[in-house]
Amino acid sequence: MNWEEVYTSAKQWVIEAGEIIRASFKRTLTIRTKSNPNDLVTDIDQQIEQFFISKIRERYPEHKIMGEEGFADRIEQLDGIVWLIDPIDGTMNFIHQQRNFAISIGIYEHGIGKVGIIYDVVHDELYHAVRGNGAYLNDQPLQPLKERAVKESIIALNATWVMENHRINHQLLIPLVRDARGTRSYGSAALELVYVATGRVDAYLSMRLSPWDVAAGAVLVEELGGVVTNLKGEKLDFISRNSLFAAKPGLHQVILEKYLKKGNW
Amino acid sequence: MNWEEVYTSAKQWVIEAGEIIRASFKRTLTIRTKSNPNDLVTDIDQQIEQFFISKIRERYPEHKIMGEEGFADRIEQLDGIVWLIDPIDGTMNFIHQQRNFAISIGIYEHGIGKVGIIYDVVHDELYHAVRGNGAYLNDQPLQPLKERAVKESIIALNATWVMENHRINHQLLIPLVRDARGTRSYGSAALELVYVATGRVDAYLSMRLSPWDVAAGAVLVEELGGVVTNLKGEKLDFISRNSLFAAKPGLHQVILEKYLKKGNW
Repeated sequence: MNWEEVYTSAKQWVIEAGEIIRASFKRTLTIRTKSNPNDLVTDIDQQIEQFFISKIRERYPEHKIMGEEGFADRIEQLDGIVWLIDPIDGTMNFIHQQRNFAISIGIYEHGIGKVGIIYDVVHDELYHAVRGNGAYLNDQPLQPLKERAVKESIIALNATWVMENHRINHQLLIPLVRDARGTRSYGSAALELVYVATGRVDAYLSMRLSPWDVAAGAVLVEELGGVVTNLKGEKLDFISRNSLFAAKPGLHQVILEKYLKKGNW
Repeated sequence: MNWEEVYTSAKQWVIEAGEIIRASFKRTLTIRTKSNPNDLVTDIDQQIEQFFISKIRERYPEHKIMGEEGFADRIEQLDGIVWLIDPIDGTMNFIHQQRNFAISIGIYEHGIGKVGIIYDVVHDELYHAVRGNGAYLNDQPLQPLKERAVKESIIALNATWVMENHRINHQLLIPLVRDARGTRSYGSAALELVYVATGRVDAYLSMRLSPWDVAAGAVLVEELGGVVTNLKGEKLDFISRNSLFAAKPGLHQVILEKYLKKGNW
């Protein structure tokens, strides 16, 4: 497998898809809901997913594709090479804000993340990595992550998870929020993982994400020395929905031991 | 008073200050704490405040100045013309992220906001308004705000306020978060008010802000038809610390009546 060529093709297609998305700002979106009234999808999400599928099928007919919008393959295990695609991660932001969303593409080989690409379309910021070869923002190398104490850390975390909810005992997270320096919430898992990878936040926690939300970000975070698991500290399988906990080295273990593992779940 | 000239001077100085801040990214910051370990200030915050003070004193010696970093005047009432300056709103973001902070300048006459300028330095986005003459992002006019239902709204709100705290009964806010489409938290009151002004979020709530945090943003939000009060629905005096509740027209009244006024506070 010529990974350099796959990487170059993927980046090129992501930039092209970004141009299609930017052009869409001038016209009216068709917005539908999926599983619930706040689970939104637009015609652009679907158009961009189809754009990637047709490019991949043409160039790499032997690769498999997992995508958010349902036009790709049904995949039950990550053997061979699989592209995990979120054409617009943060669709709610895309609709309400026309910013704070991203294209996210992870390419995995036998379940191991090889390539991660996240494109903040509006700010023209392309975050990309091939495992073992460093991570970049556009052409600038990103620096390896350093350790950080909880009391000096900023945690990306939605307010929902410190209220009573049916996914986690919120009493586990409240002490973490109290001990940390601050919390932020941006509404796009891909960008929140970019924020961990770049050190802009020190940890990111979310209760329920799909493989295409996190596949690219996990490659970026791990390439810079960060740790990506679910909230129990277990490896992700990138097949099923799961919780997500990404953090700086050291801090990941501390938060897991001191806060998350106190739960009986 | 030639407001057009004041407006032009203020915008020019803000752009110059932005250049100083961008240049500072290359060198090491001197970081100190103020009221508590998470209340941070850098030498750049102080340098930028002094930059504005010297410019204003030279050009408009009769104007008064209120600033976050303590180099300005002690002001007990807003008579005459007063500049309310936050040289870097979102200092924690400035330090941790080198983005998501802003310069914020409001100019008030006898307590009435006349000019509001917020500059997102990193993205080179200058948001500005003179009362009665429209609001702009760079040279693009911003559109008047439209009404929005709670169930379709995104609320900017820090996770802290839906946990038990000594500023508000968090049980008042939890139903609002449950009914809304989503929440976000960006860590800069000036930028969060810009997000309300541009319609990227529909409401912003915070428990304790200073006049210089909100003076510019209030001019922008009101110029576009939004409503700015404290969490009890009372007018702000721009002299003392207060809570803040800014929202789209209509939505402000609904949230006040249906959620916030149920509190006995």
